Amino acid sequence: MSIKHPEIERESQQNPHLVNLEVDYLYHLGLDTSMDLPSMFGDVKYVCMGGSPERAEQFAIKAAERLGISVPEEGLEPVGKTERYSLYKVGPIISLSHGIGMPSASIVLHEVTKLLRYAGSTDFKYIRIGTSGGVGVDPGEVVVSTNVVDGKLNPVHEVVELGKSVELDTALDSNLVQSLLTIASESDISATAGTTMSTDSFYAAQGRLDGALNPRYTETEKMDFLQLAYDKGVRNIEMEAAIIGAFCREAGIPAAVVCAAILNRLDGDQVGSTIEELEQFSDNAQQLVLNLISKELNLTD
Amino acid sequence: MSIKHPEIERESQQNPHLVNLEVDYLYHLGLDTSMDLPSMFGDVKYVCMGGSPERAEQFAIKAAERLGISVPEEGLEPVGKTERYSLYKVGPIISLSHGIGMPSASIVLHEVTKLLRYAGSTDFKYIRIGTSGGVGVDPGEVVVSTNVVDGKLNPVHEVVELGKSVELDTALDSNLVQSLLTIASESDISATAGTTMSTDSFYAAQGRLDGALNPRYTETEKMDFLQLAYDKGVRNIEMEAAIIGAFCREAGIPAAVVCAAILNRLDGDQVGSTIEELEQFSDNAQQLVLNLISKELNLTD
Repeated sequence: MSIKHPEIERESQQNPHLVNLEVDYLYHLGLDTSMDLPSMFGDVKYVCMGGSPERAEQFAIKAAERLGISVPEEGLEPVGKTERYSLYKVGPIISLSHGIGMPSASIVLHEVTKLLRYAGSTDFKYIRIGTSGGVGVDPGEVVVSTNVVDGKLNPVHEVVELGKSVELDTALDSNLVQSLLTIASESDISATAGTTMSTDSFYAAQGRLDGALNPRYTETEKMDFLQLAYDKGVRNIEMEAAIIGAFCREAGIPAAVVCAAILNRLDGDQVGSTIEELEQFSDNAQQLVLNLISKELNLTD
Repeated sequence: MSIKHPEIERESQQNPHLVNLEVDYLYHLGLDTSMDLPSMFGDVKYVCMGGSPERAEQFAIKAAERLGISVPEEGLEPVGKTERYSLYKVGPIISLSHGIGMPSASIVLHEVTKLLRYAGSTDFKYIRIGTSGGVGVDPGEVVVSTNVVDGKLNPVHEVVELGKSVELDTALDSNLVQSLLTIASESDISATAGTTMSTDSFYAAQGRLDGALNPRYTETEKMDFLQLAYDKGVRNIEMEAAIIGAFCREAGIPAAVVCAAILNRLDGDQVGSTIEELEQFSDNAQQLVLNLISKELNLTD
């Protein structure tokens, strides 16, 4: 006899195949449905994601401070396994690393979404807080993505399923985007609204000339492409926003992307800022999102 | 006056644009050409790569034991920054994490290749040592990739450069593949030669039915696709081999991919093995590569 966990039946509204699982192992998170996920994660309202485990921890600590939750001297403990992703839970916030690139981010999107549905969480939102190359935008400026295009400047994310291409709409949640822009205009954080271009590489797909391989394009062709992107509204380039938009749209989860620019690609390819500058850039984006969460949760600063 | 580092001029044979850089910041590795890279990395002959920082460290420790290099009690120190990738240097071996997926791996391929060229290393090889879903192959079996196909079962890796698609040949180094298969046949590690399919997601691109979203395909369509892949010679599915093949071919670096199967996808989607079993599976692939390196370096076991 197959034992059906009640959480798995709730999830089955999204993916009917999950009812066949006695236990769902969220392999990359190191969590599974034999655990008491509702008591661990039932109150989550925000999943805030960034590239690295370090940034996930830093954001979790800043979120705890903002929410008035005390952080032990030895730091916060991640939940689950940390081999590939790191997940921190602070009040109604999950702070999570998604690694670099859309394939890496897609795994954690699937698994954290199943996690929250099994936990019975409702009305949660996903916000990617990252770094990016600015396009006509100075280092330190925060870009709030209004929409997302792929490396061909189309508003889609192409995936291959059973050998066939499928193009998914990358549109973000316009209400959440507007709320972030309103919050930015009320603060001293300098923010720009614009299109984000998501690519599958840091070097050639972003037109860099400083990779290991001899580029198939010239400096002039590179600058023409960056200028074309700028003219079409692109204000930053990074490697995950398109999957955040596409996945969340399909899953019915409001999503936004907030990235600090760490260089202006119209000026060059190399990231030459100091560690302190990079931390400040990253903090600008994090503080903007914390301002939004504070406002939505009716916290006073 | 622009100061040209001699290392940058050597590298310029591959990418002429690099001569314009006074210092090349290998941003994601946290290393740059103002450091004495030749004394740090000039003797490297093998770059062994896996997904996670933990596995990079474990492999480095096993490599040190094999090479008779003592490991301090507190463990090995990574070189450079560890926010996104972890790099260990043990004798002529770099053990490196590449994260999950081809976009993540592509960054580290570019940067470690520039690193080795700046260091003046010669005749180096790249070997990915990973885990994978077996196709008609049991958990624990090591698959030595003879060739690599993408999610559409074509032997190419598609990249987008300045908005245009480019298809790159994913062929691996046949001599290195043959050496690995010979080593396997001389050991008690059970290994299979076969085609590896590299995909851009763990869920839909690999035909899984246990993601968060309702699949656009049925159980029957999934099994038909996996059987088709098997019939075309595919013996495992993972997320990085195609970029290893494509990048290394273009860079002129011999490359191979050696992955343990952690489940047989013809039997299901979920990874249900214990941590101990997964470590043993991973160790099988690592020992095979260490056997190859020992033989090539004329070490006795």
